[in-house]
Amino acid sequence: MRDVAIIGIGMTDFGELWTESLRDLFVKAALESMDDAGVDHIDSMYVGCMSPGLFTGQEHIGSLLADYLGQAPIPATRVETACASGGASLRCGYLEVASGASDIVLCGGVEKMTDVSGGRCTYALASASDQDYEAFHGVTFPGLYAMIATAHMQKYGTKREDLAQVAVKNHDNGLLNPHAQYRMKISVQQVIDSVKVADPLNILDCSPVTDGAAAVILCPADRAKELSQKPGVKILASSHATDTIALHQREDITWIKATAVAAEKAYKQAGLTPADIDFAEVHDCFTIAEICVYEALGIVEKGKGGEAARSGLTARDGKFPVNSSGGLKSKGHPVGATGIAQIHEIVAQLRGEAGERQLQNVRRGLAQNMGGSGGSALIHILEVLS
Amino acid sequence: MRDVAIIGIGMTDFGELWTESLRDLFVKAALESMDDAGVDHIDSMYVGCMSPGLFTGQEHIGSLLADYLGQAPIPATRVETACASGGASLRCGYLEVASGASDIVLCGGVEKMTDVSGGRCTYALASASDQDYEAFHGVTFPGLYAMIATAHMQKYGTKREDLAQVAVKNHDNGLLNPHAQYRMKISVQQVIDSVKVADPLNILDCSPVTDGAAAVILCPADRAKELSQKPGVKILASSHATDTIALHQREDITWIKATAVAAEKAYKQAGLTPADIDFAEVHDCFTIAEICVYEALGIVEKGKGGEAARSGLTARDGKFPVNSSGGLKSKGHPVGATGIAQIHEIVAQLRGEAGERQLQNVRRGLAQNMGGSGGSALIHILEVLS
Repeated sequence: MRDVAIIGIGMTDFGELWTESLRDLFVKAALESMDDAGVDHIDSMYVGCMSPGLFTGQEHIGSLLADYLGQAPIPATRVETACASGGASLRCGYLEVASGASDIVLCGGVEKMTDVSGGRCTYALASASDQDYEAFHGVTFPGLYAMIATAHMQKYGTKREDLAQVAVKNHDNGLLNPHAQYRMKISVQQVIDSVKVADPLNILDCSPVTDGAAAVILCPADRAKELSQKPGVKILASSHATDTIALHQREDITWIKATAVAAEKAYKQAGLTPADIDFAEVHDCFTIAEICVYEALGIVEKGKGGEAARSGLTARDGKFPVNSSGGLKSKGHPVGATGIAQIHEIVAQLRGEAGERQLQNVRRGLAQNMGGSGGSALIHILEVLS
Repeated sequence: MRDVAIIGIGMTDFGELWTESLRDLFVKAALESMDDAGVDHIDSMYVGCMSPGLFTGQEHIGSLLADYLGQAPIPATRVETACASGGASLRCGYLEVASGASDIVLCGGVEKMTDVSGGRCTYALASASDQDYEAFHGVTFPGLYAMIATAHMQKYGTKREDLAQVAVKNHDNGLLNPHAQYRMKISVQQVIDSVKVADPLNILDCSPVTDGAAAVILCPADRAKELSQKPGVKILASSHATDTIALHQREDITWIKATAVAAEKAYKQAGLTPADIDFAEVHDCFTIAEICVYEALGIVEKGKGGEAARSGLTARDGKFPVNSSGGLKSKGHPVGATGIAQIHEIVAQLRGEAGERQLQNVRRGLAQNMGGSGGSALIHILEVLS
């Protein structure tokens, strides 16, 4: 397998972008990534998108977007693993470049969520849970993660305040990200006092509904210097794992097994341990998700996720910063774009281009992107090329 | 890149399968392909599926189906390029094995279309056309292909009877395929007398709405003999191309450019010309589609597709048999499964396992799978390993 590098990144602002369509958003991010890489042509592309059919009535978006990007007749494929579709897009592009079939591949993600109103949006998102055993009976994602939170609190003594602390930290970070949807400082008390969604989760524990797109450009690592003047970033590991998408079938709903399995594979491929990683972007679709992911990634031991949030370990000035971008919570969560937006942040940090939220002395970052209530996980470990 | 072989195939019957769900169908085909290959484990899998969200309210089917197949936590990704999703699934698996990342990969396709009634089914299928410029204004796929047919008739003198002849031939073949949805002999006159859908296309010019699934197992070509006792089939070429998905943006709507581009790439990769291929499965979603595809594949010259149908060239006993399986017209068209079902037929023919419809002296076959009105095309060329 050839080594693969990322040489270009682009993303739109995240938010309720009423005047921009799915194709507008994607092309904006894709062109920015091509400009950033300094390429005017790509050999192939993948688009992560969870449900353009239910959100906009438009499938077949690989071809549609390649055409709007002015790149048809290149191969263009949409990939989907619910909210981890962005991560899956990167992995498909990684395999294509690693195989030798293509040199310059664009991996993008997009979601246009605000074309449908509340109920239809909830229905579309619920299609990432088990339709027969969960969605049909009325449980939605806040409800599923509320069950995980309740179980985590009962089993490990995780506190309401620990959950809130995740949101507070991520909003502190998002405040410094010009692309973020909700740039506002919040307090633990505000999270606790905010409107209840599904006990114990309040509205400020939940990531928002968002429009947005992101894209990155891949090439063989040994061509990175020739193609781009910016520091190349190498993909040290790309891993993907699955689990039952229905919660009731899992042995322990506080343990995000797909993430744990993917993490183990990624560390093995990179020849690293969690201690060798400097920072991460993780999938905080709900505050409890980030806490469970700390444990599944091995950043802390099982049951210690709440403590990690409380202690400041994962704050921007902590020992292991998590979600310096603002995470899904503050930056926004256009579901198919999220996995690529995480890569955007890691590359920006590794290049020293993260502006006011720049982390110091970071060489390796990890992105963890998750589908549904943890039924799929994509993990990538990136390192700046010296 | 490593050479890749197909060592297992499986498919369900195609039809209106009221008692079988999306997950039932997929698992049935997937288990059959694993049994056929003689493997009890796969390293990774891809599922081609066009719109499980709109057809069944279920996205995130990669993880769902890997779990139901008893293979979680393996990586499992759904890929979509409208009706060419099955072909895209095969191409992703091909690249993964070629890269060296995985050895045994399942590439499947599935669609459960009959859970929704007429209008919603038409809406779901129309999501493969351009939502803003086509579907919103009321044109559906029979209408789009009717425009192509009308243009082809005007430009090249193609006759109504030529279109009908495609349906007659494919039904003659499907009669001998135990998996086919409509096993009945029809005549040119019956096609011409059947109910009008969109002039000049009648109901017997159109492929049906179908439930079904198909799956194949890939491995490195040099492991085929060790893993399976059946003749291995090598993937000589895998290509993918795109075009504008909206008809009005094309220079010439009678020329399926994405198929022509993909064909050229496939012939180049395999080092072959059309004359070196013995038979093909092509995407006859409407009778006119098969006629246009003959031309785009270079089987006949531009404008000679109607004549090819009329002359018997592509009949089962013709010089270049096309759609020995019955094609989409008679076998059925569960959109995400179609591309893999084509591969199923080619492998069955190359192995000499095609029963009553077995072709004589065939060593190389080509599969052409198409999305929308030709906005995407996937082509694979297969050869039996000696």
